Amino acid sequence: MGKPYVRLDKDNAAVLLVDHQTGLLSLVRDIDPDKFKNNVLALAAAAKYFNLPTILTTSFEDGPNGPLVPELVEMFPDAPYIARPGQINAWDNEDFVKAVKATGKKQLIIAGVVTEVCVAFPTLSALAEDFDVFVVTDASGTFNHLTRDSAWDRMSQAGAQLMTWFGTSCELHRDWRNDVEGLGALFAQHIPDYKNLIQSYVKNTAK
Amino acid sequence: MGKPYVRLDKDNAAVLLVDHQTGLLSLVRDIDPDKFKNNVLALAAAAKYFNLPTILTTSFEDGPNGPLVPELVEMFPDAPYIARPGQINAWDNEDFVKAVKATGKKQLIIAGVVTEVCVAFPTLSALAEDFDVFVVTDASGTFNHLTRDSAWDRMSQAGAQLMTWFGTSCELHRDWRNDVEGLGALFAQHIPDYKNLIQSYVKNTAK
Amino acid sequence: MGKPYVRLDKDNAAVLLVDHQTGLLSLVRDIDPDKFKNNVLALAAAAKYFNLPTILTTSFEDGPNGPLVPELVEMFPDAPYIARPGQINAWDNEDFVKAVKATGKKQLIIAGVVTEVCVAFPTLSALAEDFDVFVVTDASGTFNHLTRDSAWDRMSQAGAQLMTWFGTSCELHRDWRNDVEGLGALFAQHIPDYKNLIQSYVKNTAK
Amino acid sequence: MGKPYVRLDKDNAAVLLVDHQTGLLSLVRDIDPDKFKNNVLALAAAAKYFNLPTILTTSFEDGPNGPLVPELVEMFPDAPYIARPGQINAWDNEDFVKAVKATGKKQLIIAGVVTEVCVAFPTLSALAEDFDVFVVTDASGTFNHLTRDSAWDRMSQAGAQLMTWFGTSCELHRDWRNDVEGLGALFAQHIPDYKNLIQSYVKNTAK
Amino acid sequence: MGKPYVRLDKDNAAVLLVDHQTGLLSLVRDIDPDKFKNNVLALAAAAKYFNLPTILTTSFEDGPNGPLVPELVEMFPDAPYIARPGQINAWDNEDFVKAVKATGKKQLIIAGVVTEVCVAFPTLSALAEDFDVFVVTDASGTFNHLTRDSAWDRMSQAGAQLMTWFGTSCELHRDWRNDVEGLGALFAQHIPDYKNLIQSYVKNTAK
Amino acid sequence: MGKPYVRLDKDNAAVLLVDHQTGLLSLVRDIDPDKFKNNVLALAAAAKYFNLPTILTTSFEDGPNGPLVPELVEMFPDAPYIARPGQINAWDNEDFVKAVKATGKKQLIIAGVVTEVCVAFPTLSALAEDFDVFVVTDASGTFNHLTRDSAWDRMSQAGAQLMTWFGTSCELHRDWRNDVEGLGALFAQHIPDYKNLIQSYVKNTAK
Amino acid sequence: MGKPYVRLDKDNAAVLLVDHQTGLLSLVRDIDPDKFKNNVLALAAAAKYFNLPTILTTSFEDGPNGPLVPELVEMFPDAPYIARPGQINAWDNEDFVKAVKATGKKQLIIAGVVTEVCVAFPTLSALAEDFDVFVVTDASGTFNHLTRDSAWDRMSQAGAQLMTWFGTSCELHRDWRNDVEGLGALFAQHIPDYKNLIQSYVKNTAK
Amino acid sequence: MGKPYVRLDKDNAAVLLVDHQTGLLSLVRDIDPDKFKNNVLALAAAAKYFNLPTILTTSFEDGPNGPLVPELVEMFPDAPYIARPGQINAWDNEDFVKAVKATGKKQLIIAGVVTEVCVAFPTLSALAEDFDVFVVTDASGTFNHLTRDSAWDRMSQAGAQLMTWFGTSCELHRDWRNDVEGLGALFAQHIPDYKNLIQSYVKNTAK
Repeated sequence: MGKPYVRLDKDNAAVLLVDHQTGLLSLVRDIDPDKFKNNVLALAAAAKYFNLPTILTTSFEDGPNGPLVPELVEMFPDAPYIARPGQINAWDNEDFVKAVKATGKKQLIIAGVVTEVCVAFPTLSALAEDFDVFVVTDASGTFNHLTRDSAWDRMSQAGAQLMTWFGTSCELHRDWRNDVEGLGALFAQHIPDYKNLIQSYVKNTAK
Repeated sequence: MGKPYVRLDKDNAAVLLVDHQTGLLSLVRDIDPDKFKNNVLALAAAAKYFNLPTILTTSFEDGPNGPLVPELVEMFPDAPYIARPGQINAWDNEDFVKAVKATGKKQLIIAGVVTEVCVAFPTLSALAEDFDVFVVTDASGTFNHLTRDSAWDRMSQAGAQLMTWFGTSCELHRDWRNDVEGLGALFAQHIPDYKNLIQSYVKNTAK
Repeated sequence: MGKPYVRLDKDNAAVLLVDHQTGLLSLVRDIDPDKFKNNVLALAAAAKYFNLPTILTTSFEDGPNGPLVPELVEMFPDAPYIARPGQINAWDNEDFVKAVKATGKKQLIIAGVVTEVCVAFPTLSALAEDFDVFVVTDASGTFNHLTRDSAWDRMSQAGAQLMTWFGTSCELHRDWRNDVEGLGALFAQHIPDYKNLIQSYVKNTAK
Repeated sequence: MGKPYVRLDKDNAAVLLVDHQTGLLSLVRDIDPDKFKNNVLALAAAAKYFNLPTILTTSFEDGPNGPLVPELVEMFPDAPYIARPGQINAWDNEDFVKAVKATGKKQLIIAGVVTEVCVAFPTLSALAEDFDVFVVTDASGTFNHLTRDSAWDRMSQAGAQLMTWFGTSCELHRDWRNDVEGLGALFAQHIPDYKNLIQSYVKNTAK
Repeated sequence: MGKPYVRLDKDNAAVLLVDHQTGLLSLVRDIDPDKFKNNVLALAAAAKYFNLPTILTTSFEDGPNGPLVPELVEMFPDAPYIARPGQINAWDNEDFVKAVKATGKKQLIIAGVVTEVCVAFPTLSALAEDFDVFVVTDASGTFNHLTRDSAWDRMSQAGAQLMTWFGTSCELHRDWRNDVEGLGALFAQHIPDYKNLIQSYVKNTAK
Repeated sequence: MGKPYVRLDKDNAAVLLVDHQTGLLSLVRDIDPDKFKNNVLALAAAAKYFNLPTILTTSFEDGPNGPLVPELVEMFPDAPYIARPGQINAWDNEDFVKAVKATGKKQLIIAGVVTEVCVAFPTLSALAEDFDVFVVTDASGTFNHLTRDSAWDRMSQAGAQLMTWFGTSCELHRDWRNDVEGLGALFAQHIPDYKNLIQSYVKNTAK
Repeated sequence: MGKPYVRLDKDNAAVLLVDHQTGLLSLVRDIDPDKFKNNVLALAAAAKYFNLPTILTTSFEDGPNGPLVPELVEMFPDAPYIARPGQINAWDNEDFVKAVKATGKKQLIIAGVVTEVCVAFPTLSALAEDFDVFVVTDASGTFNHLTRDSAWDRMSQAGAQLMTWFGTSCELHRDWRNDVEGLGALFAQHIPDYKNLIQSYVKNTAK
Repeated sequence: MGKPYVRLDKDNAAVLLVDHQTGLLSLVRDIDPDKFKNNVLALAAAAKYFNLPTILTTSFEDGPNGPLVPELVEMFPDAPYIARPGQINAWDNEDFVKAVKATGKKQLIIAGVVTEVCVAFPTLSALAEDFDVFVVTDASGTFNHLTRDSAWDRMSQAGAQLMTWFGTSCELHRDWRNDVEGLGALFAQHIPDYKNLIQSYVKNTAK
């Protein structure tokens, strides 16, 4: 009746970070900048933590769109980095698609700026080629709520699954026992409320 | 054309309360804490009122996530209680699934914290095994509206029905005449506006 | 691919007004009371204007739920009026279903209080019997936005079309030339901005 | 330059609860009903905890305004209870003013329904007689944010101090050591987040 | 310390309705049009009910600003009606000020469109001439919340009292016993929740 | 599983601008008037930039609905212009459908006022005739968020794709290299943040 | 009792536009960018229309803050332009203060980015030197509502009057008859709703 | 007329950080946790950058309130640290007041959790002793907007100035030339939008 449950699998997933550039970020107004920055870095940290192949791409980075945010550059020094010469839909860039296919992964985790273009276009293209697409909604940003809601509807109706960085991390990890400290550190770093819980816990149990 | 009408049946439904733990509740910010607490307790009261088999489960309750909220412990002293040793998706825990299947019920009413993980994961797993899943959205909580909307879309697209504790109670009860006082008491206890109506009514008709 | 376009037809539509009772209205908080009252009366006025068979029903009107709002009683003195003795889902009441079927109409326009129960339940039941259901969302009310969104999703996924009283009126009327004055009066009475446009127009063209 | 710091003193304060009636509560829409009920009961509990003289009053309680909410009746069985025969401003009722003056207190803590009338009118009258007035804003309710903001401005400009039930309790208590358990219980009962903190703490330190 | 309590007195108050014109109303977006229309008519009805001298004025009513809303024209056929030939601040119009002073009243109740101009300007001018000014905030409208908040601050800081139509009515009436039916009818007509209370009451007490 | 990816193609798309009339625009309150005007003109500018056949239509433009906004008249002096004599659904007007079909395009980009009527009705009709419909949500407006959400759901469920003017432009352009200056000028003209990026860029790189 | 009514006088007022720079504008998130740009340009247009001496100033315009927005540069080619070498408070820059005092005006109309710094600091300094300061709140922007509300409170408490560009224009103009066309054009250019009124008016009166 | 301009002076200011404890932070819901954490750390970083004497205090840190957030402990290893044994108002603790007075500063910059208690109480007490108090509103948090607004009003009316961490930093720094790199680094670290501006600038000017 509904979409089948395609579950994220860390052995079968790749991460695509699309156009998180310093200029384009000034366009993002559907989410607070403090929170948005945190979410993007959290998704990136999760990608590294789970050793997921990660692909970076930018649009016209020598122009007003600005360079990729430096934190991402530093976190993924060896990742494929496709500075697209003009294609708006990253999937129209052969190098990008080659890099995606070279990972051999069937599940694509996508986030970017702005949601209805840089995220939605490759999402729709990848779905059309039978990839399973997981859009990380809270690491993607756009002009306002109206544009976001339109973009989400288009992607969801086309078969994409709407995820968050936290849900993505939990679905990839499956079981805390795989590495309690590692996952706890990831969450503490990016969820202030969770870090507070841990600090209170450590203090109280130390008595 | 649309999903068929699968109607809640009190003889065929079980309730799953997932990870309503004192620590995790500090993460819930998509709903006011006064209202959220009320909704969770209302759903629990409805489960008791309709004698639905109810299963409790927690995640890492000895750590920062904290213990199950004491009201739920007290309301369901004899319910299966699965303190999961690490599985994030409760459905990955054999004991939990066994407990669910032991109820012999086909309809699962699920609520928990946080929505996109502790609720969505077992919802999707149960749907994949052909259970009918009813998500009680107002007794489930998460970080913010963005994460909630993403989680709802994912669950709805997969075939879950989005419910509230009040709708759930009404659909289970079917007819006020089955027990006017009982249902009225349940509502008065958890809906201040409804209690006010009753108080005004009692006062006025006593004249 | 999508739902087919079932278009409202004034010769094939009936209106069901469910539980707009003076007590229950105090529960409605997802829409401002001034606007809600206006929308309900506008839908009722449209039903009269298009001569649609209209059915009134109430739940426990002798108790705290209170009587049907007097304006509706006055507007539809001859309409079938089913004071349900206990059934929460109006469709569980034989007299109600008989009254619906006696209209001979295939298209049902439904509004009521509260959305996830009094509207959603008969909507789902009617869809299961192959009626075309048009939910008038802005003449239906409930506890808050969260409960509304859940109810809308459930009804839409089951095949209902979400309408407003204005859209309903326009789709029924088809062509202004069928009666310019009549439709204009309906709108002027219930849309302050539209009445202002007319007043300015009349003033200016009178010069 | 600014208003002098008049600090709440439990030996010099009385509480006035004005028109928290079951009918009038249906008018309150500037604050969620779950939260509002909790706030009113929390203020009442604080009044009892600090043994503050408390005065109850109602407006036309035999009519549509409805009876005083039963919880308040039960909590203050011996409090002066002035059922006003018609005066809208409680301060226009001689018995009410007598009861206030009989307490011998200079500081008046006021809450009620609706804010711009039942709270603002006696607040302004009491200020005019040189009482110090502390309005408990979150235990007072009205039609919408616009009416609330207007009422707050009028009262603040006239010299009232805007307080909350929590701030009021803390200012009255002064020092946790006066009674840790008592104040903790008051907060745990009315602040879900605080109760969660305590539960986590108890669990963790019990190890 | 604060502003003294200047209390509305029906024998000493006049009402000024400024520029509620059909064109200008399309500029009002800080309040819903259904509610705004209701509030303006409620204030007008209160003015009539208390027999307050009422003055109507318009700005350029032959141009795009449009005519005065017809309901006000009908309600006050004999009121001074100053169609200002150009003055933006009504107080700059001699006829208007003469009409105000001819009432012999010291207390002015003002509402209009738009708040920061048509309301604020005569408010500030009247304050400068030592009138007591009561701005009816919910019967005044403007472009958005930002402009409203600025206007309120300017008027309040200059000494105006911010009121609502309901608070104004209650302060003028003083005691329900002066006319229970009359005031109840005024409220029932303009507060749907209040009308519902009355209907429930009548039904229940008729048993 | 989901809708197939029908991608906008500038050689196969036409633009339908429905009822952007000066009177009807006063009804639009789900989007700020400054932003709405900008979005409508941006969509129109994109239509011109991509040389898409564009069709204008109005409803009763000689009455209170008012004339088409003059900017659109000036931008499309040679476009088919159908002043509908009465049909509410533009698709019920033969001339309009003829004009649409005369373009020979399969993809229809639709925007208008109000969303649930003037946009939704032709959208549903065109879908029923197997056109691909792209609704430009941010160049369409209606009474409030509730009516918008209902309209979006109805159109999306029927198979329409929800777009924005920016997403539409990007999907049509495909590659910046097709005309960097042109697209940049379009964006700079209608996205203040983007213009700021360009200005900063020009200033900085000029050093 | 309140602040005296200091009324804007076009013969005694100067306009200070502080730091509306292309980079700094990306920090403004308490107001939508489309509306904010419009408001700033509207204030600038009003300054020109009333021939008010206008002073431009920037902070570090060669760095990341970016150049003054080009529209302002073009509108005021001959205005004093103080590119401050480092002073954050423009009033700390001697040239700026000299330019202000050279205008000989006592009333200062100030707007800028960001509100709590670039606007508030010179506002407080000018008030300290007994200027009358009028802050144009809707042509000033900052990080979020919280920072805006804090800044407004600080400035208002210090004696500044909070204005909008529309209120400012109306208070300066005094009487439409001084120039109906001019003021009408200013409003039509910057208030879409007002332009619509005019267009409808022109169309209708042309019959 | 208004409050005189008391300007922050880095040689005469001290910072008081009150009760930013890991447990209490779960009560803060008037500001997003990502943003709140950032603001608190930004204020702390500013205190260090300007070498302002800083005083830390906690309430019952061995109980459920939890320990001081570890980042603050690490940033101020040598600061006076008053773990209050019970006083709710830090100013009631002699050691705290001694530490404040030992700084010899007249200007106090205060932030804490929760606003209406831990911030407001010492603010009012310090004002009563003629200190100049600057409340950093965005580094202070409480239960909801209603409690925040009440607290702000009380503090502002008593003479406190409402500031933000950014405004505080700018007022302390006075002139960028005192240290461009230092202030720029402070802002880049805590304002994502500002960091983006710098990154774009560096990239573009490097060409």
